[in-house]
Amino acid sequence: MNLLKEKILKDGYAIGSNILKVDAFLNHQIDIGLLDEIGKSLHERFKEDSITKILTIEASGIALAVSTAQHFDNIPVVFAKKTESLNLDEELYTSEVESFTKNKSYKIMVSKKYITSADKILIVDDFLANGKAILGLKEIIDQANATLVGAGIVIEKGFQEGGDIIRDMGIKIESLVTIDSIEDGVVKFRD
Amino acid sequence: MNLLKEKILKDGYAIGSNILKVDAFLNHQIDIGLLDEIGKSLHERFKEDSITKILTIEASGIALAVSTAQHFDNIPVVFAKKTESLNLDEELYTSEVESFTKNKSYKIMVSKKYITSADKILIVDDFLANGKAILGLKEIIDQANATLVGAGIVIEKGFQEGGDIIRDMGIKIESLVTIDSIEDGVVKFRD
Repeated sequence: MNLLKEKILKDGYAIGSNILKVDAFLNHQIDIGLLDEIGKSLHERFKEDSITKILTIEASGIALAVSTAQHFDNIPVVFAKKTESLNLDEELYTSEVESFTKNKSYKIMVSKKYITSADKILIVDDFLANGKAILGLKEIIDQANATLVGAGIVIEKGFQEGGDIIRDMGIKIESLVTIDSIEDGVVKFRD
Repeated sequence: MNLLKEKILKDGYAIGSNILKVDAFLNHQIDIGLLDEIGKSLHERFKEDSITKILTIEASGIALAVSTAQHFDNIPVVFAKKTESLNLDEELYTSEVESFTKNKSYKIMVSKKYITSADKILIVDDFLANGKAILGLKEIIDQANATLVGAGIVIEKGFQEGGDIIRDMGIKIESLVTIDSIEDGVVKFRD
């Protein structure tokens, strides 16, 4: 996706050899035009898969999930919550996610009311690095006996193991851009 | 906004005399059709105000802010973050928000890069109760010497003091629905 690559080169920036910051347009400030192109592209890659629901994790996945859902025909978004809230029900599916960038684990939860065994679910997320976010969401989908159709990812870090792990499980992954390396602040994309 | 009132009566539910849960369509599962109507209505109420940026707080404000921004002409969304992240810059505006429903305070932060003194900012949020979220965001806007144009709210709890406090400060508030009372699980709207 050329627009996204250009944006990453122009407004993203790398820290060390692992971290790519996209706060300028994706997960702190959000470029609405780019967001729509992302949603359109993710829809394009999963439009034949009879998706009934899009699942993501708060907070940075929400805009992406909404933008993707808008291109499908009337399917809802569900976002897993990261912390316990007095406003959430007791009837929850839960799992644990180890964050690569934050170097800690957190608990995610989804109310049992919002995923059923009839659901065919598309996961949407900003980054695929170690794959732990997808695996955590998959655990919740499995608990609900729902079907995981695949995962639509904006930026895959091709130099980390997550993509291989998830694909080896037979799960369809579509990443809009894949990064082969980050070296001295220079981002190299996979062709 | 009749569609929203119908949705609240059908899929929302009240706890005690203070809490209205809208997890089914607004802040856990998101109804994309309703979300678009909300964005359209909030745009309608602020379209003459030369807005340059929409500001909200993660996580439940993000979908609303995106949906509203989509009806403006190419303005970005910025969402304040609730927790410190290794992925965030050191150069931050910060303030504190006392959550009514969670009964605790949390810190919010926005990178100095994403609000400038030239910005005319619309705050968007799901609920207006004690007004503390708007006041916390206003503090950040003031730190940046930006202009707070107003706040677009989905559901105002008219029986709490936030709306009066903010309006008395001369800030334009537009709430799509205002609730006069919640009693024995029955929600009463203001006409």
